[in-house]
Amino acid sequence: MSYAQAMTTIKRGGSGQATGERELIERIRGRVAGLARVGRGGLRLGIGDDCALLRIKAGEELAVTTDLALDGRHFRLDWHPAESVGHRTLARGLSDLAAMGARPVAAFLSLGLPPELTRSQRRQKPWVDRFYDGLLALAEACETPLAGGDLAESPLALADIVLVGAVRQGQALLRSGARAGEALYVTGRLGGATLGLELLAAAAGKPRRQKPPDAESALGPHLYPQPRLEQGQTLARRRLATAAMDLSDGLSLDLARLCAESGVAAEVEAELVPCFPGATLEQALHGGEDYELLFTARAGARVPRAIAGVPLTRIGQMVKPRKGRPTVTLVKEGRREALAAGGWEHFAS
Amino acid sequence: MSYAQAMTTIKRGGSGQATGERELIERIRGRVAGLARVGRGGLRLGIGDDCALLRIKAGEELAVTTDLALDGRHFRLDWHPAESVGHRTLARGLSDLAAMGARPVAAFLSLGLPPELTRSQRRQKPWVDRFYDGLLALAEACETPLAGGDLAESPLALADIVLVGAVRQGQALLRSGARAGEALYVTGRLGGATLGLELLAAAAGKPRRQKPPDAESALGPHLYPQPRLEQGQTLARRRLATAAMDLSDGLSLDLARLCAESGVAAEVEAELVPCFPGATLEQALHGGEDYELLFTARAGARVPRAIAGVPLTRIGQMVKPRKGRPTVTLVKEGRREALAAGGWEHFAS
Repeated sequence: MSYAQAMTTIKRGGSGQATGERELIERIRGRVAGLARVGRGGLRLGIGDDCALLRIKAGEELAVTTDLALDGRHFRLDWHPAESVGHRTLARGLSDLAAMGARPVAAFLSLGLPPELTRSQRRQKPWVDRFYDGLLALAEACETPLAGGDLAESPLALADIVLVGAVRQGQALLRSGARAGEALYVTGRLGGATLGLELLAAAAGKPRRQKPPDAESALGPHLYPQPRLEQGQTLARRRLATAAMDLSDGLSLDLARLCAESGVAAEVEAELVPCFPGATLEQALHGGEDYELLFTARAGARVPRAIAGVPLTRIGQMVKPRKGRPTVTLVKEGRREALAAGGWEHFAS
Repeated sequence: MSYAQAMTTIKRGGSGQATGERELIERIRGRVAGLARVGRGGLRLGIGDDCALLRIKAGEELAVTTDLALDGRHFRLDWHPAESVGHRTLARGLSDLAAMGARPVAAFLSLGLPPELTRSQRRQKPWVDRFYDGLLALAEACETPLAGGDLAESPLALADIVLVGAVRQGQALLRSGARAGEALYVTGRLGGATLGLELLAAAAGKPRRQKPPDAESALGPHLYPQPRLEQGQTLARRRLATAAMDLSDGLSLDLARLCAESGVAAEVEAELVPCFPGATLEQALHGGEDYELLFTARAGARVPRAIAGVPLTRIGQMVKPRKGRPTVTLVKEGRREALAAGGWEHFAS
């Protein structure tokens, strides 16, 4: 309903209201009610009141992050299965908590949808239900109750996710903690999400298969990225990392940000970069949305080879920044070159 | 940049990025940095890392709320001054905290804007700067630091606000606490926001005045609603209210929601309803966006006449629900009639 129509409704007054939104909210409420118990007891009051109420433990502080996803920009309704849009929406937020070493306490979702996405079409499940299938499956796997949010009819499909996490005071992993002489690490393998995106783009317009691609397919790293929560929490708890962030916009751009916040420079050794099978070094260096963790550790730190089955790989080191030298240097076949940021930024002209 | 363009950028790799978004973020960061100090010390780390870090006091719990506002639905770029859009965005979230009796700890804003709203036009301040003028003025008045958020280019202007508040454990005002026999109250006066909206609609299309209307004008209650934070916190601290919520969709609809959550019915006495000067009873009963508080109190409770200059008015009582009787009854000139919900709901067909 438009603003002008809403006004008409106000003036009409007393009219019985169609209950589209309430019904949708009730349906979601029913689905998420079971999930309220999956968390570790932080959620006291969820959907239905003016605010959700949460508790954290004494000695913890809160980590809060928000991520906005828009159709045509962060996902494409004509490319991404609805389940993947739901999964990716939550994964982006959880990945920010992972980067701080925080445990998830609750998620909040603001959803704006064209009305046709909330209705059943050709006897298929409504898009919004499949979106929640994807989002709630990840929420359950990561013990994150969906505690509230907002819902509005919108000409543009959009999802804004808020994650509230908790971390022991003083243990949060910041971007600003890296020092020259420390080693630089990543979790997992890089470039898989970009490789998947290119496969997805190549398949666009071709006839759809019956079953949407799942996490096990070659599109998996793009469609169903896994937030590195256990890795981040372990790095924080054991005080292994001096700084950390998640790789959302590509190693080259994100590493430059970590350097800026820490006031240091970095060298990446090309042959150490763990490329996802089939991905090129370019994709691993500049591709976005891998949602792996980038972190630094003191030279002598005993960083394990893997945490919960995910490898940790040293890819370079932090060095002193020098005037006239690039912030991030790539060392490749004995040669040194500037590693310019190859990711992308919004509002770029 | 579209998703497809983003892909091209990934493939191109290594290209220097235009810094539109980063510049905008830096500008906002500079403006909000001062504000980080306005809160009562809850904010430890703001914009610039993966998450913001917040602390609350021992014995407190968290109240979290999100509100999504879209152009054409919750505001109109061609009707509302940018300052008002910013103010209203934050006011909606603060009002939810007020309804729970919580104090604000921090706000988070996800903003999606068409690029022209981020640029200076005809030597005027960019729209986004005026939006922040309105939002940050209210943030300062309500001691609420803006601690983070997200930003994206969007064909549709939208703002999703998240408020994190704190309230002493067990003191939060819920919608579910009302019992039969209790008295029903509102803060302030009702109908002013709808009256203002109608004035705004009438002025639409006519030549703009040089100066946008301010909070003191007849449009004030619509353009610059005041969240009742002090009133809500006092009601919670003194345990005066048994249930509370804020009036966002109109008394008739919101009271029905409070009744549903509490399992009671209500009677509203028409002559007791405090109408905003110039507003009709219809506007006071059904008009949305007044952001006053609706609350219940035990029959013998000593509810003050005003808190911090804002009047508290008894407008009726809670009664036992009876089959075949309306949930909300209006008593007017000795007659009783059903008060049907006259607000509006999203996704209504």
